[in-house]
Amino acid sequence: MINAKILDLNRNGSAIRAMFEEGKRMAAQYGAENVYDYSLGNPSVEPPKEIREAFYHILEEESQNLVHGYMLNAGYEDVREAVAKKLNASFGTAFSARNILMTVGAAGGLNVAFKTLLNPGDEVITFAPFFGEYRNYVSNFDAELVVVPTTPETFQPDLAALAAAITPKTKAMLINNPNNPTGVVYPEAVIRDIAALLCQKEREFGTSIYLIADEPYRELVYDGVQVPYLTKYYHNTIVGYSYSKSLSLPGERIGYLVLPDSLDEADEIIAGAAVANRILGFVNAPSLIQRVVGRCQDVTVDVEIYNRNRELLYGKLTEYGYSCVKPQGAFYLFVKAPGGDDRAFVEAAKKHRILLVAGSGFGGPGYVRLAYCVDHDMILRSLPGFAALAKEYGLQ
Amino acid sequence: MINAKILDLNRNGSAIRAMFEEGKRMAAQYGAENVYDYSLGNPSVEPPKEIREAFYHILEEESQNLVHGYMLNAGYEDVREAVAKKLNASFGTAFSARNILMTVGAAGGLNVAFKTLLNPGDEVITFAPFFGEYRNYVSNFDAELVVVPTTPETFQPDLAALAAAITPKTKAMLINNPNNPTGVVYPEAVIRDIAALLCQKEREFGTSIYLIADEPYRELVYDGVQVPYLTKYYHNTIVGYSYSKSLSLPGERIGYLVLPDSLDEADEIIAGAAVANRILGFVNAPSLIQRVVGRCQDVTVDVEIYNRNRELLYGKLTEYGYSCVKPQGAFYLFVKAPGGDDRAFVEAAKKHRILLVAGSGFGGPGYVRLAYCVDHDMILRSLPGFAALAKEYGLQ
Repeated sequence: MINAKILDLNRNGSAIRAMFEEGKRMAAQYGAENVYDYSLGNPSVEPPKEIREAFYHILEEESQNLVHGYMLNAGYEDVREAVAKKLNASFGTAFSARNILMTVGAAGGLNVAFKTLLNPGDEVITFAPFFGEYRNYVSNFDAELVVVPTTPETFQPDLAALAAAITPKTKAMLINNPNNPTGVVYPEAVIRDIAALLCQKEREFGTSIYLIADEPYRELVYDGVQVPYLTKYYHNTIVGYSYSKSLSLPGERIGYLVLPDSLDEADEIIAGAAVANRILGFVNAPSLIQRVVGRCQDVTVDVEIYNRNRELLYGKLTEYGYSCVKPQGAFYLFVKAPGGDDRAFVEAAKKHRILLVAGSGFGGPGYVRLAYCVDHDMILRSLPGFAALAKEYGLQ
Repeated sequence: MINAKILDLNRNGSAIRAMFEEGKRMAAQYGAENVYDYSLGNPSVEPPKEIREAFYHILEEESQNLVHGYMLNAGYEDVREAVAKKLNASFGTAFSARNILMTVGAAGGLNVAFKTLLNPGDEVITFAPFFGEYRNYVSNFDAELVVVPTTPETFQPDLAALAAAITPKTKAMLINNPNNPTGVVYPEAVIRDIAALLCQKEREFGTSIYLIADEPYRELVYDGVQVPYLTKYYHNTIVGYSYSKSLSLPGERIGYLVLPDSLDEADEIIAGAAVANRILGFVNAPSLIQRVVGRCQDVTVDVEIYNRNRELLYGKLTEYGYSCVKPQGAFYLFVKAPGGDDRAFVEAAKKHRILLVAGSGFGGPGYVRLAYCVDHDMILRSLPGFAALAKEYGLQ
């Protein structure tokens, strides 16, 4: 008998990944240009040209044993220094290399943070809808994910519901801003309210409640919106970051954790996270790509490409009668499923060779997620299918 | 209160890593050329030239979204196919891409295997001395590492001791061949005996006992010795491999698991390992380096460089009166600590600016480990220190 949780996940696997694999099958059957795959957050925009230049520079100029060798488990000191410097310049913080731990993407970083913080039976709070993998990351360490609803339609946090969910067993709260799957950005006023509430509950219960900010979409924002940097609002904040989206490098598995000196037990957490990074089997974030992102701190992909997709898809879908909050960040639309049954709508869309992911997997039943980090032309080609679906469901 | 195991590890951290960091401090103080750091298995030999050529080829010829994007959690299909083909050509096996899961090094692979197989309370057997991280990898999944002694002096498996250690709770046995820290290779006859014993115990207890072969040192062998490929001897074998040593790429975190169709519950294990790779936060092995090793299946570092180091160091140390089995693989010497107290000898060696690791951390008290994957000149410079230490301890 293999691991019981893994057996269970084999039977109820990731809806996103299942759709990704189905997309590959359908592309083989119908031709890639006739399948409209909105299932996976796999950026279609190429990495900025500076990435390529950095690869060449490092391969030509730096020692191979440095570039491909072991370094401290936390990462190269010069890379961590470059990350800290960029954060300080952007947000007025005062981090040093000591506060930065290079990780195998944000997924690796969240697992390192949870391994470091959580004891069995601890509770971790997050808002619905949420990235479904959070449930597995928390379960990895035998803690419990407590899901708090957001306000219907806007998907903004419901502070009263949050207050009711915090208990003496709450070890952490996980915030994803901009949010996957809704594209919503929590504004500064909401962040201030959450911070005040967490401080109050820490005092009330005599506990430490760590706010973990999962921020792979930080740079992907539209309409000039600002994403608050959470370490400035709350002392017990840990930031998890990934370059997967901002530099179109999701396969490379590169990101970092910010572990501020203001954390309760900061020394233990900083040392412990490096240990967790080691013993979970990451050992260190991949070396060459660490050095590449270290040189590309001022670079991001052209967000306007995603914005064009957002405007087109949001405009057309609402024109067809679909209902959806206009996202201010990330590259997802979270659309109300016509008919109310998200899984049924996903099946109906497949008949038009449109691949969506059911909201149920995100704690958002009745909705479907579209990842619009795709070719603009694919969106154009998919529109007749969406229009036909709208008619089938009587939206117009 | 952060995680209790992490707190404990903060206080009793990795002896190897502590020495690595001490080595950096001493290098700053005395000059790098005056510190003789034998602590870490960080290859000094550069990657083969084909690695560099593969990087350039891929960066120039392949689509950036392919090279840096998401792929199946198990890895690129063409890379897994290339790995399977090479294994089949080398060992007469019959693997396909389905049997290969690309991992974040061998450390990532072992954690994926354990996550997939182990339920809390399961037992995992390994032979002493062993790579100390095994204890943490098994503990990550709330299973118990059962350490079985080897024959004194030769470090070869003691089959009677192994037979006595296997219980109905034995879920896996972990073998590291060639062995870190001893450099010993277990020959075919021993492997046959182990396989026969495991089969007998599986029948006796009605259980599945998975043999996990940790093989990052497979290609680093000397004197024409052969390392048996364990899937050929035992049906329930999983192989964990890393390119860290064979291609001098330890920082890149790239390796694979072999999951044969002959495994009990093969389908569940193959599917489950991909899930484990995803939810532990690896998601997938880093993408560009996957494609690089996929193109370099016939390449290894020049083992003769390590052999020269082995001959020099083994020859001189035994000449000075130290006692040590002559290693046939890997790049470690496991030397009897003069005076019998390994930690005291490590401290004494530090006074000669020689950095060693105490055998206690490997379940081999009374010995010290030397990693000779270092510059040949560093070995030469360190010899007067070893000679002086030998005199201090009255070895001559």
